[in-house]
Amino acid sequence: MNVRLLLLAVPLACVTADDGIWLFNQFPKERVKKAHGVAITDALLDRLRLASVRLEGGGSGSFVSPLGLVFTNHHVASDCIQKLSSSATDYMSNGFWAATAADEKPCPDESVNVLLEIRDVTARVNSAISASSSPAEATRKRKAARIEVEQECTQSSGGNLCQVVTLYSGGLEHLYRYKKYTDVRLVFAPEDSIAAFGGDPDNFEYPRYCLDFAFLRVYENGKPAATPNYLAWSKTGAREKDLMFVSGHPASTGRLATLAELEFFRDYSYPLNTETLAAIISALETYGKESAENKRIARDLLVALQNSYKAFSGFLGGLRDPALMARKRDEDATLRNAAARNAKQLEELNAVLGEVGSAYQSYRDFYKEYHFFEYRPVRGSDLFRIALNILRSGVEKAKPNSERLKEYTDSALPRTEQSMFAAIPIHESMEIVVVKAWLTAIQKELGPDHSLVKEALAGRTPAEAAEAYVRSSKLKDVAERKRLAADPAAAAASEDGMMKLARMVDPHGRRVKRQYEDRVQAAVENAASRIARVRYSLFGTGDYPDATFTLRLSFGPATGYTNRQGKPVPWATLFSGLYQRATGVEPYALPPRWKTPPKGFRLATPFNFVTTADTHGGNSGSPTVNANGEVTGILFDGNIESLPNRFVYRANDQRSVHVASQGIVEALRRIYKADRVLAEIGISVK
Amino acid sequence: MNVRLLLLAVPLACVTADDGIWLFNQFPKERVKKAHGVAITDALLDRLRLASVRLEGGGSGSFVSPLGLVFTNHHVASDCIQKLSSSATDYMSNGFWAATAADEKPCPDESVNVLLEIRDVTARVNSAISASSSPAEATRKRKAARIEVEQECTQSSGGNLCQVVTLYSGGLEHLYRYKKYTDVRLVFAPEDSIAAFGGDPDNFEYPRYCLDFAFLRVYENGKPAATPNYLAWSKTGAREKDLMFVSGHPASTGRLATLAELEFFRDYSYPLNTETLAAIISALETYGKESAENKRIARDLLVALQNSYKAFSGFLGGLRDPALMARKRDEDATLRNAAARNAKQLEELNAVLGEVGSAYQSYRDFYKEYHFFEYRPVRGSDLFRIALNILRSGVEKAKPNSERLKEYTDSALPRTEQSMFAAIPIHESMEIVVVKAWLTAIQKELGPDHSLVKEALAGRTPAEAAEAYVRSSKLKDVAERKRLAADPAAAAASEDGMMKLARMVDPHGRRVKRQYEDRVQAAVENAASRIARVRYSLFGTGDYPDATFTLRLSFGPATGYTNRQGKPVPWATLFSGLYQRATGVEPYALPPRWKTPPKGFRLATPFNFVTTADTHGGNSGSPTVNANGEVTGILFDGNIESLPNRFVYRANDQRSVHVASQGIVEALRRIYKADRVLAEIGISVK
Repeated sequence: MNVRLLLLAVPLACVTADDGIWLFNQFPKERVKKAHGVAITDALLDRLRLASVRLEGGGSGSFVSPLGLVFTNHHVASDCIQKLSSSATDYMSNGFWAATAADEKPCPDESVNVLLEIRDVTARVNSAISASSSPAEATRKRKAARIEVEQECTQSSGGNLCQVVTLYSGGLEHLYRYKKYTDVRLVFAPEDSIAAFGGDPDNFEYPRYCLDFAFLRVYENGKPAATPNYLAWSKTGAREKDLMFVSGHPASTGRLATLAELEFFRDYSYPLNTETLAAIISALETYGKESAENKRIARDLLVALQNSYKAFSGFLGGLRDPALMARKRDEDATLRNAAARNAKQLEELNAVLGEVGSAYQSYRDFYKEYHFFEYRPVRGSDLFRIALNILRSGVEKAKPNSERLKEYTDSALPRTEQSMFAAIPIHESMEIVVVKAWLTAIQKELGPDHSLVKEALAGRTPAEAAEAYVRSSKLKDVAERKRLAADPAAAAASEDGMMKLARMVDPHGRRVKRQYEDRVQAAVENAASRIARVRYSLFGTGDYPDATFTLRLSFGPATGYTNRQGKPVPWATLFSGLYQRATGVEPYALPPRWKTPPKGFRLATPFNFVTTADTHGGNSGSPTVNANGEVTGILFDGNIESLPNRFVYRANDQRSVHVASQGIVEALRRIYKADRVLAEIGISVK
Repeated sequence: MNVRLLLLAVPLACVTADDGIWLFNQFPKERVKKAHGVAITDALLDRLRLASVRLEGGGSGSFVSPLGLVFTNHHVASDCIQKLSSSATDYMSNGFWAATAADEKPCPDESVNVLLEIRDVTARVNSAISASSSPAEATRKRKAARIEVEQECTQSSGGNLCQVVTLYSGGLEHLYRYKKYTDVRLVFAPEDSIAAFGGDPDNFEYPRYCLDFAFLRVYENGKPAATPNYLAWSKTGAREKDLMFVSGHPASTGRLATLAELEFFRDYSYPLNTETLAAIISALETYGKESAENKRIARDLLVALQNSYKAFSGFLGGLRDPALMARKRDEDATLRNAAARNAKQLEELNAVLGEVGSAYQSYRDFYKEYHFFEYRPVRGSDLFRIALNILRSGVEKAKPNSERLKEYTDSALPRTEQSMFAAIPIHESMEIVVVKAWLTAIQKELGPDHSLVKEALAGRTPAEAAEAYVRSSKLKDVAERKRLAADPAAAAASEDGMMKLARMVDPHGRRVKRQYEDRVQAAVENAASRIARVRYSLFGTGDYPDATFTLRLSFGPATGYTNRQGKPVPWATLFSGLYQRATGVEPYALPPRWKTPPKGFRLATPFNFVTTADTHGGNSGSPTVNANGEVTGILFDGNIESLPNRFVYRANDQRSVHVASQGIVEALRRIYKADRVLAEIGISVK
């Protein structure tokens, strides 16, 4: 259907049984039956879909009670936990437990969505373009058409969240309709030193010992929401060899990426991303070392950035592996050979791949600016994000809906405004650290003579300039944000430091975004539609599209593997292993509650385990269920070997990493004595 | 002659007039005559060679008076300047000027060498191996043979420094004999804020405004050495279009590298190097911000690391440029096509290139360990370097000379011991920073379960462990170093923290060094000798080998260019431009002496200028001379466009950057009033 779909067809030949992040409306039931002897019914798929949730802060989860109880990862809920914490109430360090319903604490800016329906709107979106449209025009028209479709859907559904999901770079356009919950509260969280035991060194490693789960609850009209579609807790828990299903929201993969795209990732965008991440991480670590309070403040952002850094390093490792790239080149060659049966087809294929190559070549001219001004402008700064939102929402809301930037369309605005006006803790000292890191990075990467670098620094050092921008901003005050958001003229004239910085960055961001859309996205989309013809003449259907932070279903048995050092790794770890690994020194120090396990605590309980399921960033918090749809665990990570599977799935050693449901039960029972929640998920307190 | 020479032959077809880092004994006089109409005599070559010096701290220089006056870069002399400075005598910030000969200050551990003779010893080295030698055996035998040749030379020359230089990966072996000077003193240095004006942001940039020069002097028997072969100062200075020659010591290039090697650089070694550099730089910057004294202490190391970082980023930029790699692939294809005229020849070529590819593939398994344990063990730590030298010198000196590690052969030992026992300032606080950075890096890159990581951390954080190693070391004390070096048993049992760390790292370093030699170096050397046959049947002679930190001669006219933004850049900058760029904020702040230029200071004097000469890191401090061999400037940098010319020379926009001799004279006359040195270089004080 497009260049990506085209390239996909080849690896299907050597696909393994458990490969795939499948659309719920195209789930390969036959394949699962054949490979694993397990029959999946439509009823089970519907239940799983309606019990699965997306957390807009970035992650997945599931309903596990009829009263809106959401089961997710600690590291997904941590955004809320951190925002609810202060030096006096440090729920990150100490954990949190709402002994009664009244104690459940509202998250300042989380929201949770449930997928109600998927509809194919490909024809509708493509009807917007004509044969005479240039690629850049076509891209703009498709974009406007998607916004119109979303608007109609939201209006006719009485306010559901509607999003058009572009699959295969435009080969398919699906309309996803969600029920949304914006009142989300914290119910239970363990201490971060057990939730993320092993910290950054053990992240993406296995064997592993992390109690990475938390409970939230969605409310409607001030009451726990009714969620009749929820997942029951398995009585047996996870068992070796059992086939598991993972229902969640992988954010991004590049299985169908062209060679030009992969080379661009390898040589340009990923190295820049890892290098700038390393610099911010280092700055935050230094900041955190200045005091215990700084450490507490920086904790959640630091962990998120460290996680990104390690993930991108792993992706880069894959792209730098000659074997992986050779496999991608083979796919490319196989495709061209197949197309070569028809001279005209080969010519068209080569032309289209050539255009995609040229697009990525031209991207090199502005990718650094795109990174710093639009993709991640002033990364880590809440004040800047808010300032830019205020500035842009004023400008964008004055435009027709279909011409707005994506975040400000009628369908997206409620979420944007929720996060814009949330009363979250903002610490000026940490804001200065991240603003300074950004100024330092643009000075280094774009050079001291770049016009924005000159304007933003205005003859000052990055430290001086950052201090000035942050200290002169009043945007910590929600009322001030609302005042400026309601008055675009005031926003345009404000002397507030962060508003001034936002006004400097905004035109550059818009410029590079337009360059990206006109040069890169347009070429890729144009190629997609033109390649469809070639593709259908060569291959059949039955694929899955790359990840788009929308609901997908993956599967695979719980089974060990042989790691890169040639050592066999068992399918599960036990609590006893946790105590062997705990040295008492951070990040291998246990929280007080855990230091001496209570009498009766079963050290032989499975704690974490692995499956061959094909999962990715964004899947964090996905329920892991058995063939009956019962909860046997929760996905929280992949092993280090799994990172290159962003591009190629390899079942031999790539593994998804889960917390075992029986480990969670053991902890809730014996360590936390969280009887209320045990009862709610239907487990005896014992 | 080998795989590198073989691959070289192709680009010669599109070689530009000024391409080349030429051996003094194979200088292309005809080519210079033809391209530039300039006749170069053997007498001029001899004079240039005997007036050129290598500074063992890392850089180039020249004699510019008959009394041992050495002209080099400030950033080459800075190692000495920093070591002579203290908080009370901060010669880095304030500059240094020896008003009388008695005021010239001995550098603690610099030495200077002059190349007396080059002899071809290829046959002698290769005679060590037999047809039945395995590649790994052959590599070891060649290594032993080189040491024997050096030993004989040193003995027969009454103590000259003798080094066998392996060119074309072993295609040629040349014996270089040097006169050595180990008493080197500081005569004059400007303030670092004018020497390195623009700091890290302007490094590798042009237009440029740096007074990057200094004067040292070599002494013999406590008196200024007699250096009858010296370079006279040009009366006119540098002029646009003049052909310039640069005589110096480029350290490393990859013009003849195979594709496998370039891909290894691009995907493995360079990314690791830049990422670990970024981390140490960040740690040192943080340290420097804690106090003015810390900033002073860290200054020289920080600048050196920043320079490396920017250089490697530029090399990476070249390797990530699809156009550059396409050119390298074309060279490869052209070569194979040429060889294909003879089926057996093509088969041999493919086999040999395949072996090199496999060697680099296997290098991936241990390249991180090689980097951290042997290539750059505990980067930046003087204490660790000294500890490892003490440990290894004890072990190695007990072995026959030909079996020792390179640094401990009879020929290399004097230099190793000079630097091992030098009374240099060592600051424990900064040592802790770099040891911690290394521990953090190995934990991150090799994982917490690597045996050395576990042993070195022993359950502590990197900060705790670093503190313990450094604080418990007595190696700041030269007498203690000498005691341990003289008593290998004591060194092996010492409880000194850094000795313990050295004992942990040493076996790992030896292991990976052996792996490197047996797997990678052996394959490359083996390929080299086998490819010679193919090469000679295809191409003629007339090449230059890759750089080896030995004396080379480059040339090219002083001429402007069009930069990457399409802007014309003039051949020279003037002092007036310096005053336009000086904002008063670091790194664009002028030292007090410069803030208001004295009356009569000629702002229209050329300050820095560019040539097309083919230069590289290690060339820093090389004299720039006109066709008469008179000093017209000093090389100190390349522009950012020149960095990828590590792999491919492109005359269109790559430029070497020099300080103009007339700018230096103007500064010495009007700003510094350094009459003594002006008189010595034969320039009127006016």
